[in-house]
Amino acid sequence: MLVIGERINSSIKRIEDAIKAKDSTLIQQEAIHQFQAGAHVVDINAGTLIKTESEELIWLLQTVFSAHGIEAGVRIALDSSNPAAIEVGLEELARLGRAEQTIINSVTADSDKLEGILPLVKKYDAQLIGLCMNDKGIPDEPKKRCQLGQSILKAAEDHGIPIKNIYLDPLVLPVSTDVKKGLQALDSIRLLKEIDSEVLTVIGLSNISYGLPEKSLLNRTFLVMAMDYGLDAAILNPLDTQLMSMIKAAEVLLGLDDFCMNYIKAYRNGELKS
Amino acid sequence: MLVIGERINSSIKRIEDAIKAKDSTLIQQEAIHQFQAGAHVVDINAGTLIKTESEELIWLLQTVFSAHGIEAGVRIALDSSNPAAIEVGLEELARLGRAEQTIINSVTADSDKLEGILPLVKKYDAQLIGLCMNDKGIPDEPKKRCQLGQSILKAAEDHGIPIKNIYLDPLVLPVSTDVKKGLQALDSIRLLKEIDSEVLTVIGLSNISYGLPEKSLLNRTFLVMAMDYGLDAAILNPLDTQLMSMIKAAEVLLGLDDFCMNYIKAYRNGELKS
Repeated sequence: MLVIGERINSSIKRIEDAIKAKDSTLIQQEAIHQFQAGAHVVDINAGTLIKTESEELIWLLQTVFSAHGIEAGVRIALDSSNPAAIEVGLEELARLGRAEQTIINSVTADSDKLEGILPLVKKYDAQLIGLCMNDKGIPDEPKKRCQLGQSILKAAEDHGIPIKNIYLDPLVLPVSTDVKKGLQALDSIRLLKEIDSEVLTVIGLSNISYGLPEKSLLNRTFLVMAMDYGLDAAILNPLDTQLMSMIKAAEVLLGLDDFCMNYIKAYRNGELKS
Repeated sequence: MLVIGERINSSIKRIEDAIKAKDSTLIQQEAIHQFQAGAHVVDINAGTLIKTESEELIWLLQTVFSAHGIEAGVRIALDSSNPAAIEVGLEELARLGRAEQTIINSVTADSDKLEGILPLVKKYDAQLIGLCMNDKGIPDEPKKRCQLGQSILKAAEDHGIPIKNIYLDPLVLPVSTDVKKGLQALDSIRLLKEIDSEVLTVIGLSNISYGLPEKSLLNRTFLVMAMDYGLDAAILNPLDTQLMSMIKAAEVLLGLDDFCMNYIKAYRNGELKS
């Protein structure tokens, strides 16, 4: 499963402070720690700094990629609701020679939003997270979320973007607000995967446990359930070693780890936390 | 989910020793600890002591039910492949006034075995674990396991036993022998639940992790997956607090814990181990 590290986000106070103070050491450590812990992609978000978001993104990208220990193949998720900031970020990544397989996080299923972002996805051969919601909100019914996902896939196809470059996000909402929210997201994943065997899905994990104690316990339990339904990617905290260990266990149990090799290797490296 | 505690089993050396030495204190503690930890049923197995199995079962039942702190409503799973020992156990439970909802663990889908045990299930209004295998072994194909489950349900029906008194066990085999074993069991649970919404399923959990390190991690990950498919009961170690915590988290996420009340209560009681 593709692991997208969520920790470089200006909605986290210490990250916002580091961005404002241009504390490159802290940002670089956050990136390196996440990659070392098993993240394949690191999400970059400066959304709380509305007026300077584009400049902050440029600085963040330059900072991450100038860090010692950042390997080739490392990928970025550009996390913004502002297409102008996304474009600036993609340009900077191209300039750095790091644009390959960048994930744009995210767009809703509204035509005007899609028409603003899909040309960028096409131009930079990027990947896109499409949220199964629109300007009317998030439907409760999994079928309706799935229809919104289908409309995103259709719009992408119209722009000549292959299905493998779109991750559909069924949207995870807190079970503390309604105990049906978990099942709604799981059923949505199941329906999205039934559209076509090539459809890719992603969730932002931590929403599920909002407002409840022992969040990590709920997060990792929910992730296993979502993986059971074929989830392809998740935005999460890769420094949660119990969560990362459980991903490895789930990959064994779902038959995705031949001869349990990765699992046993992780055990031998002392990476599994029970 | 119904939790059946697995710890009073003579295949565990210290339990066999306690049975031989008639160490009632150790057995009583094993029973009480399991119930206190959240087991609804305690499994009793003296199968390694072949020659004296029936007498050992009688002693174990008398010992458990004479323990201080054993509450009304506490239930037993009589675990034996010997119908004569099962009958002796049921008689003893009836004599103790504790026969209600006893679970007989287990029978295979062979007609001669079923004809030996179903009259006892009927006579004592007991419940029965039916294994989805027969004298030819355990089929790899989930469909075939499901057919064997259906044949058990049919035989039970012919004896006038309601579907709610049968737990079908799809059989969990170690992923260390073949990484497909997890998916085979999960698919079997899904198919069994599709026979009829009233069909109940059970698994013996710990088999899944046989031969691999960090067994508890694999066990609890697999249990969440099985619960995701609608598993109704599991034979497991209730003293594994991380496992028991994860069951509570899974019940929240599957919409089975109204207003997350049980989860929050467990948290307040310090019962959740993250």
